[in-house]
Amino acid sequence: MSFDKLIDRIVETKNPTVAGLDPKYSYIPAYIRAKYDSIADPLEAAAAAVKEFNFALIDALCDIVPAVKPQAAYYEMYGWYGMRTFAETISYAQKKGMYVIADCKRNDIGTTMEAYAIAHLGHQEIRGQKVSPFGADALTVNGYLGSDGITPLLKVCKEEDKGIFVLVKTSNPSSGELQDKKAYVRPVQTVYELMGDMCEKWGEELPGTKYGYSGVGAVVGATYPDQLTELRRRMPHTFFLVPGYGAQGGGAADVAGGFDENGLGAIINSSRGILCAWQKEKCDEHDFAGAARREAIRMRDDIVSHIHLK
Amino acid sequence: MSFDKLIDRIVETKNPTVAGLDPKYSYIPAYIRAKYDSIADPLEAAAAAVKEFNFALIDALCDIVPAVKPQAAYYEMYGWYGMRTFAETISYAQKKGMYVIADCKRNDIGTTMEAYAIAHLGHQEIRGQKVSPFGADALTVNGYLGSDGITPLLKVCKEEDKGIFVLVKTSNPSSGELQDKKAYVRPVQTVYELMGDMCEKWGEELPGTKYGYSGVGAVVGATYPDQLTELRRRMPHTFFLVPGYGAQGGGAADVAGGFDENGLGAIINSSRGILCAWQKEKCDEHDFAGAARREAIRMRDDIVSHIHLK
Repeated sequence: MSFDKLIDRIVETKNPTVAGLDPKYSYIPAYIRAKYDSIADPLEAAAAAVKEFNFALIDALCDIVPAVKPQAAYYEMYGWYGMRTFAETISYAQKKGMYVIADCKRNDIGTTMEAYAIAHLGHQEIRGQKVSPFGADALTVNGYLGSDGITPLLKVCKEEDKGIFVLVKTSNPSSGELQDKKAYVRPVQTVYELMGDMCEKWGEELPGTKYGYSGVGAVVGATYPDQLTELRRRMPHTFFLVPGYGAQGGGAADVAGGFDENGLGAIINSSRGILCAWQKEKCDEHDFAGAARREAIRMRDDIVSHIHLK
Repeated sequence: MSFDKLIDRIVETKNPTVAGLDPKYSYIPAYIRAKYDSIADPLEAAAAAVKEFNFALIDALCDIVPAVKPQAAYYEMYGWYGMRTFAETISYAQKKGMYVIADCKRNDIGTTMEAYAIAHLGHQEIRGQKVSPFGADALTVNGYLGSDGITPLLKVCKEEDKGIFVLVKTSNPSSGELQDKKAYVRPVQTVYELMGDMCEKWGEELPGTKYGYSGVGAVVGATYPDQLTELRRRMPHTFFLVPGYGAQGGGAADVAGGFDENGLGAIINSSRGILCAWQKEKCDEHDFAGAARREAIRMRDDIVSHIHLK
């Protein structure tokens, strides 16, 4: 219903970061890829390699990193075999105690959005049996369609104690083309501020009981530190998922403004930085999970040194 | 590269409509569902029933309807089994000569958006083999992230002769919460007009050679006929995918403004109207595909009577 469960994990691990699982084929050590050479279908083989890669990363990170964020695009690119690995990754990470944010940026309206909510966060009854298709803990969504695209999610979040992150101000260079446009309202506000205000409003349906953050979060990029700081003040009940640290150029000082005075209120994502740590370190490829763990610790210490996490 | 292929099919069939394949479990006749009772996993059984339902609909529609639009949410809700049915549906419809619009409303940036482009429209090389994960002809996308979320698609569209439809003005009641906001630019323009102008600009990368429509289309709802007419004038090179006919309240007179003087420039979607025709007609459930065909013909004649298709 709120992000209490995620924030509990952050407090326990003293680590406000999330490992993005964006498994491009080229990130996977050759010795793992070679193991599946006997599988005839290249998509099936790739999906099997991704599964082994992800499971090893989860094993290496689960006691120190509170959450993982599998990015759907990197599973869909391996077809339905990839989606099977997506489901297996989510369930394995949860079994290991991690909170799972499905980064799918889904958006639609009415019963179609309800179908996405069921697919990624909820349950349905088929032939009297209750089944959960992917069963993540939170889902990223795109709010361009307005409330009709968000309210179908709130019902599922409430019933199943799940959360959503709505894109507000994204980390990419061209995010301003639309998001920074000033809207003709009084007082003048940017498109991303309007979206942020809607998040606060939607969040009233899913109040946070423990830390004050509702079940409606926002995606706000690390690459725009001023806007991140401003939005932290403007959206006091909205928990932030912050991409753009590391590879995209955001540093620990840039993300500090996303946190509140208790060092909470945000979780910082790193994908490539963690997945490709073994390539950057130039260590033995068999040590890829160890390199990921070393990078996760370095990132945690970097960020925690800039905030006031108790 | 452009929508020439789709428009060719529309001209051949004299039918500017697309059948939305949104297979909710309750839309499927009981006799089909019962066939898969012996499959233990309810998601696998549901996905198998959806496959049979879709294939029969495609058989009944392929000679008179130019395109189908499977909606990803209704496949993801059956987990990875559903995504297998999604892939099989796309490939079966194409085999039967239909143009396939994957309604996924995907959005992300950079290499992640590239991964979606490969997943849904393109190819990739794995172990030296060229593979296509889902292989649709066009994909719906959400442009909230700006050009960084669209340009990775244009490359794939160019190489593989595919198209995209960007959400501009959606059909739902709350679409105005963000899309109708006036932006502080000169002259003052709404958010959806800005998005429309970006579609025209992105479309310059994928020029249409035969009918003047580029490979970048727009989603514009039938439920806002004035905006639809205005956008048709404003976006002369952008082909429209128009949802909202029928169940959502749009009529043939409402969609007429989306077409140009040759009766081209738009394709009108109906999902529930066609899929549930057998329930509305109260005919024998074994005749569900016949009822879908009758409704598709009724819809075609209704729309064609309001436009000037040569």
